[in-house]
Amino acid sequence: MSANTSEEQRIAGCSFSVYPMSDRFSNLILDALKATDSSKVWMKTDKVSTIARGRIPHIFDVSQAVFLHIAKTGVHTVYSATFSVGCPGDTAGHSYMAKDEKPMNHNSISSIKKDVTAKFALYPMGGGNYMDLIYEQIEAMKKHGVEVTPTHYETILAGSAQDVFSGLEKVLRATEEAGSKHTIMTVTISANSPSGDEVEI
Amino acid sequence: MSANTSEEQRIAGCSFSVYPMSDRFSNLILDALKATDSSKVWMKTDKVSTIARGRIPHIFDVSQAVFLHIAKTGVHTVYSATFSVGCPGDTAGHSYMAKDEKPMNHNSISSIKKDVTAKFALYPMGGGNYMDLIYEQIEAMKKHGVEVTPTHYETILAGSAQDVFSGLEKVLRATEEAGSKHTIMTVTISANSPSGDEVEI
Repeated sequence: MSANTSEEQRIAGCSFSVYPMSDRFSNLILDALKATDSSKVWMKTDKVSTIARGRIPHIFDVSQAVFLHIAKTGVHTVYSATFSVGCPGDTAGHSYMAKDEKPMNHNSISSIKKDVTAKFALYPMGGGNYMDLIYEQIEAMKKHGVEVTPTHYETILAGSAQDVFSGLEKVLRATEEAGSKHTIMTVTISANSPSGDEVEI
Repeated sequence: MSANTSEEQRIAGCSFSVYPMSDRFSNLILDALKATDSSKVWMKTDKVSTIARGRIPHIFDVSQAVFLHIAKTGVHTVYSATFSVGCPGDTAGHSYMAKDEKPMNHNSISSIKKDVTAKFALYPMGGGNYMDLIYEQIEAMKKHGVEVTPTHYETILAGSAQDVFSGLEKVLRATEEAGSKHTIMTVTISANSPSGDEVEI
């Protein structure tokens, strides 16, 4: 069994939220949820965020769909997520791992074109060479069609929403394949932002 | 030199954002920034978040002040932050380490009473015993006046904004004091949320 095949059997998950900066935030979120097919992930919403668990492509697909169905309205919207693979004790919901890898929302969101600005950070846990793994994946991101700018604590990304999500998924998979037993990746993605930096905190 | 004294010399920082779910988000953020005294931190805003760096109490104080000055208006507002202590290469801005520990915004925000729901996660990097450090600090949080509920990938907190911020600061300090060389803590705090969970994703 290759490292790749082995990693793909592990359950992945993310805790994600979407923040529409609008008085109509409730309806925007509810409409986006209705428009999103989450049949291939275990999903649960609590008072702070929504947790989606299953195969890596599906947790990206579902959370990206919720975000893009709001962003397409033109409202300034931020997506925030913590991805996790290999968290000790993360076993419930394994039934979802039997699903294939075909993303359910691809057809409904592939036509939504949005340029986004994002930040991500990678945390390979438990080993001393984690900074090397991080630097490798920041370099790799540049080859995934995404503009990469360093800053403190995180790395700034810019590109189309599709390229940014796709790049993040590749980076998470590659970190697994490089041997990280427990990997966290945090992501913030902003769409429809007013241009003035002074309102962006 | 005790471990505590040594740790306190290290620069800490956070990348934080506030998300007012309102059509007036820009003005709410600008007003909150004007009302916040950030003179004891190095601070820079980019298109995704604001980075504050300096002593631990000041990065909590400043980011909490920005959040509470928005939350006091009653608008549903979310605070999101990634705290970091001991990040390799994080040395610029050391001049701010000469400042004392008296928080500059205490007087202006201590009267703002808000119950909040939050999530946090702790990532002590580079060592194999990181799960023990995490479990210890989840237990410790229960003694800081905060309601603690487990969930996937993160831990749910509930309490007053002051208790939650204070508890998070204690947890970050204690993780340092326990010997973690490089610690990340991610935090999401929600105020004025509508009660229905179905709109909270």
